[in-house]
Amino acid sequence: MREMRIEPIGVIHTPHARPAGTPIQPRMAEGIEGTVEVYEQFAPGLKDLNGFERIWLIYWLDRAPEARLVVRPFMDDTPRGLFACRAPCRPNPIGISCVRLLGVEGAVLRISDVDMLDGTPLLDIKPYAPHFDAFEVGRCGWMDGAQRARMAARGLERPVADGRFEGEGEGGGEGA
Amino acid sequence: MREMRIEPIGVIHTPHARPAGTPIQPRMAEGIEGTVEVYEQFAPGLKDLNGFERIWLIYWLDRAPEARLVVRPFMDDTPRGLFACRAPCRPNPIGISCVRLLGVEGAVLRISDVDMLDGTPLLDIKPYAPHFDAFEVGRCGWMDGAQRARMAARGLERPVADGRFEGEGEGGGEGA
Repeated sequence: MREMRIEPIGVIHTPHARPAGTPIQPRMAEGIEGTVEVYEQFAPGLKDLNGFERIWLIYWLDRAPEARLVVRPFMDDTPRGLFACRAPCRPNPIGISCVRLLGVEGAVLRISDVDMLDGTPLLDIKPYAPHFDAFEVGRCGWMDGAQRARMAARGLERPVADGRFEGEGEGGGEGA
Repeated sequence: MREMRIEPIGVIHTPHARPAGTPIQPRMAEGIEGTVEVYEQFAPGLKDLNGFERIWLIYWLDRAPEARLVVRPFMDDTPRGLFACRAPCRPNPIGISCVRLLGVEGAVLRISDVDMLDGTPLLDIKPYAPHFDAFEVGRCGWMDGAQRARMAARGLERPVADGRFEGEGEGGGEGA
């Protein structure tokens, strides 16, 4: 039985210093580059990663506010259950982002489409495989109508965080 | 700064008692049903989840063996870097699975396409949204050729775990 204890395996560097203005998902961060610095002792695990076009980064939303079980998500003004949202204020503030892998140089990954804050602690890297991770769905709950309506109302082309999860601390970019 | 400490928010019940024979991914577990029991104090966060066809379960691979940085993945016999694989023996043994949501009854979710072991501790639930999570890629590293070749060699229709990650403990179903 693995003890329930986590430790950073590296750190993610991005241009996003604060939640406000940070893209809420990689899809809305296309072309924004960053790096992943993997700590030396974990570097042997990076072998063979180079062949993948996209990778999952699993990370700790270290600046997320305390958990709230009902939130107003970025894409909607109606209060929603937290588990129906991607907002950072979670009981276990773990973020997942599928970023583009541009290159591997030693223990440093060059990545693109970054939606997390600079200095975010990295917990895991997994290869992205569409036959594992991409599914067609017919329904997407409250998101189905909300995104279009909200972006139109704000005149936005790319949904970005607006600071509502900054609270005492700062929220991460992951949201919806 | 959120302290790096995790706690289960529920438990996942599946028909998979042992790693050997457990599907390595939800895609290979289509139609296999399970339930998620969310602890009462987190139940308010389930509001609005019902409208989503698929959800991400983020969970603790509690029976994964100690971390190994180079592994022979389920789909290949060549040693590969751990971070280029979905094998459970990770520094932070966190699994992600996109399962089908069949229904929400109080604090219990009925789900399908389960690839995790019975009794797996749940860390988070996120809604699955193709516009966030589904990406087309041109390259999938070592997986591109390995899956077809290995399944053919074994006469398998559905890749399942074969117990190689059982070690002293038991590996979870998440693998590749």
